[in-house]
Amino acid sequence: MIYYLEQLFRRHFLKFSGAATATSGLLLAGLSTEAAAQNVSVPKHWDETFDVVVIGSGFAGLSAAIEARKAGANVIVLEKMPVPGGNSTINGGGMAAVGSDVQKAHGVKDSVDLMVADMYKAGLGLNYPQQARMVAEKSNEAFEWCRDYLGVKFKDTLAHFGGHAVPRTHTTTIQSGSGIVQPMLQKCDELGVQLQKKVYVKRLIVDGERVVGLEVLPNYRQGKEDASNTKFIKANKGVVMAAGGFAADVLYRTTQDPRLTAELDTTNHKGATAECLKELIRVGGNPVQLSWIQLGPWASPDEKGFGLAPIFAGYAAYPNGIMVDPQTGKRFVNELADRKIRADAIIKTGHPAIGICDEVGMQPAKHVMDKLLERGVVHKFDTLNELAAFYKIPEAELLAQAERYNRFVAQGKDSEFSKPFDMGQKTLGQAPFYGVRFWPKAHHTMGGIEIDTQARVVNIETRKPIPGLYAAGEITGGTHGACRLGTVAIPDCIVFGRIAGQQVVKA
Amino acid sequence: MIYYLEQLFRRHFLKFSGAATATSGLLLAGLSTEAAAQNVSVPKHWDETFDVVVIGSGFAGLSAAIEARKAGANVIVLEKMPVPGGNSTINGGGMAAVGSDVQKAHGVKDSVDLMVADMYKAGLGLNYPQQARMVAEKSNEAFEWCRDYLGVKFKDTLAHFGGHAVPRTHTTTIQSGSGIVQPMLQKCDELGVQLQKKVYVKRLIVDGERVVGLEVLPNYRQGKEDASNTKFIKANKGVVMAAGGFAADVLYRTTQDPRLTAELDTTNHKGATAECLKELIRVGGNPVQLSWIQLGPWASPDEKGFGLAPIFAGYAAYPNGIMVDPQTGKRFVNELADRKIRADAIIKTGHPAIGICDEVGMQPAKHVMDKLLERGVVHKFDTLNELAAFYKIPEAELLAQAERYNRFVAQGKDSEFSKPFDMGQKTLGQAPFYGVRFWPKAHHTMGGIEIDTQARVVNIETRKPIPGLYAAGEITGGTHGACRLGTVAIPDCIVFGRIAGQQVVKA
Repeated sequence: MIYYLEQLFRRHFLKFSGAATATSGLLLAGLSTEAAAQNVSVPKHWDETFDVVVIGSGFAGLSAAIEARKAGANVIVLEKMPVPGGNSTINGGGMAAVGSDVQKAHGVKDSVDLMVADMYKAGLGLNYPQQARMVAEKSNEAFEWCRDYLGVKFKDTLAHFGGHAVPRTHTTTIQSGSGIVQPMLQKCDELGVQLQKKVYVKRLIVDGERVVGLEVLPNYRQGKEDASNTKFIKANKGVVMAAGGFAADVLYRTTQDPRLTAELDTTNHKGATAECLKELIRVGGNPVQLSWIQLGPWASPDEKGFGLAPIFAGYAAYPNGIMVDPQTGKRFVNELADRKIRADAIIKTGHPAIGICDEVGMQPAKHVMDKLLERGVVHKFDTLNELAAFYKIPEAELLAQAERYNRFVAQGKDSEFSKPFDMGQKTLGQAPFYGVRFWPKAHHTMGGIEIDTQARVVNIETRKPIPGLYAAGEITGGTHGACRLGTVAIPDCIVFGRIAGQQVVKA
Repeated sequence: MIYYLEQLFRRHFLKFSGAATATSGLLLAGLSTEAAAQNVSVPKHWDETFDVVVIGSGFAGLSAAIEARKAGANVIVLEKMPVPGGNSTINGGGMAAVGSDVQKAHGVKDSVDLMVADMYKAGLGLNYPQQARMVAEKSNEAFEWCRDYLGVKFKDTLAHFGGHAVPRTHTTTIQSGSGIVQPMLQKCDELGVQLQKKVYVKRLIVDGERVVGLEVLPNYRQGKEDASNTKFIKANKGVVMAAGGFAADVLYRTTQDPRLTAELDTTNHKGATAECLKELIRVGGNPVQLSWIQLGPWASPDEKGFGLAPIFAGYAAYPNGIMVDPQTGKRFVNELADRKIRADAIIKTGHPAIGICDEVGMQPAKHVMDKLLERGVVHKFDTLNELAAFYKIPEAELLAQAERYNRFVAQGKDSEFSKPFDMGQKTLGQAPFYGVRFWPKAHHTMGGIEIDTQARVVNIETRKPIPGLYAAGEITGGTHGACRLGTVAIPDCIVFGRIAGQQVVKA
């Protein structure tokens, strides 16, 4: 009874999750300790000078870099890790967009108002109104920019992700965010945007009120810093911070949500830590809504990190199948509810849930099935009876649940949990059957630094933009409120990344 | 459908709430703009020097001052407002304490574990475990310190507040926090603690890593600052920040929760603004859980600010009566659920709820009834029928609800909402009857600056305490997680205020 949630989390994370990803946060904290003692003033000599310095090479950073370069600026992108792309490359490549020609071709009736309403519903009304609306309004422009300007290859089908009222998710053909990051990197290369990897931001440098550049550590390797070897980079027009969220930073995330200890795995790459957010706070940015940290309900405890289970979940098991509690054999939540509702519901049961779909429902995830089966993340069964036996689900209850669900599909109405059947969902009956275990992992930090609609970082005291400082993507807060809808990260990053790139050159 | 929550809030706050309290936040923002341009270095000349400087004269600040003075330090308390005490003087004077002789005399079985469990349940598990436990563990010591050392007069009865498993609220005889603040001020006077009013903190002054003093504006009047007239105060041992929360700071609170616009009234005094929190962030403190801002479910839209309705609610209508939705005539939530559950439930109905009790149930609030009736906040009726007609409640439904409720009381079990009946509750039947409208107001900011269990402010980067800097009370975050239980503010403030006062002198 004591510490119910706390203990529930500890017990089950310990039991079901893989090894923790705490190391990155801990190692960085060591570096920060050293750095914190120093107060960097404006250097007499700058090692390099650019018009625009972009921090981070994910969707937001590369979008900003491309726009700034197109406007004639001399642009460099600094990336901490040895490979570019951050979480963007390991995301599922789904992009919510309203009013696309793909939606029209499929007869989906959608509107900006409807998407904003979905974002508010998931976000519990904590969304910044103007920013949420801007993402929805410009989502199709961002989609067309990816497809028509960058040459990103998208499927011609739509997916219906949890929390969305209608199907509006457009997915890259390779079902990965790298399908967008790679064309972005290629465009940067064509345009002459420089990219430097293994560069760690130590300090933003402020002259009066204006951010004028950075002190960085070149040749950075996580956990093997040489903090003395620094370099000063000048940014004539400004700095765009697009360094991502901090879901992998166990030390920092537990200060905002003490339940999310090292026992909880994360979907994020190990570089998703808070040092750039802290720098933004240090120079006067306003940290907002930091304690809202999203758990992904489609993660599997049987693989590390983001893995491939989310693709099987998002495109097969959740839309086309069911999720049951193995103790009861029954569904317990709308499989297309928003992430928070689903993750909370799974955690409340106290043990991993079982996602199930059949051969027909599996098809949209077909290309990842070999790996998932080989790794033992997804299992394949000739009958639901065998699946029930394997996962220790009461057989009769599961069969009865499947029959009820099939009746709902046939009737076009889910009388149990109001799951929307607008994707031509099929009944669950065509063998073989596929099963997966779900247990949430830390996925997205909704909170971050406050920006205005021009992607300018707002000073906590004056409420005015900090000259020379812009931010976009997961490092910012407000757009998503309490809970980000699935596949709204990409439009958020691209819409505000492009705005940041367009605005910084005007400085 | 669009912006459901947003519009709900806007519409109803506009409709039912009184004038906003936005002015204080706006005026202070103007001052801050000016101040932000300056970077205060260590002055050559200090105007005054003390061992310990305490900011804020509420429960936490005065507790710290008394302890520091008792340990031999030369102490000054700086208060921004013209009168001391801040929100502490206008609070209801209820103090949760575990294991008191009063509980024992009434045969209440309680434990530290039980109180911590209650705090976790309301806090959604976001509580800092060590801090929550420390408040519960030291709550009785704090209660006895107030009663036996300070001479605070408490009733010899207990109250059962929402979210607590058992009655553990000890209330001052005058049912106001001023019943504690005044003896504290008297003790400060006896001990030789100085108190300066109308002093506004402009800047904390840091030398190297250590906080060494402050720049302040003396003769401060809210909205009429003379920012040029500053004074430097040295703190040889350290500064204790106990400046309270920011629920009255509309400008800042909406950056954390955009729903809480100026249309929403607050229970707080107008000085409850964020400037000291921002100073703590500026010098390297870690702002945690700032977006959790509590709405008081016992506030009346028919009076301004905190008012007297919360006393009628907390001691009469909620424990001894019922709350109904006037559209249905039915109860809709456990009247002793935690504040968040009740406030959310009221807001969900879309209109103010009606709290009702009878002549017997009213007795614990008797001393405030004349004022409440005179001001038209509470109304008195000879029959429930008349009450129903006045508030436009369906009469038959209300009478049926009262009958059901009375049956539950007689049976000792609430079959509708599991309200605990452990206070010898009476049935609702002794005329006259009393009615009040409830609509939530912004009440408490759960988040704040991170401290450790020694009340030391923790550096966001190094995770080490910032030398010379302590904080206690509502300006800190973590103890309460997502939602503070009623009457846990006083033990929180006194426990950590005393710790801060004891620790700062050791520096």
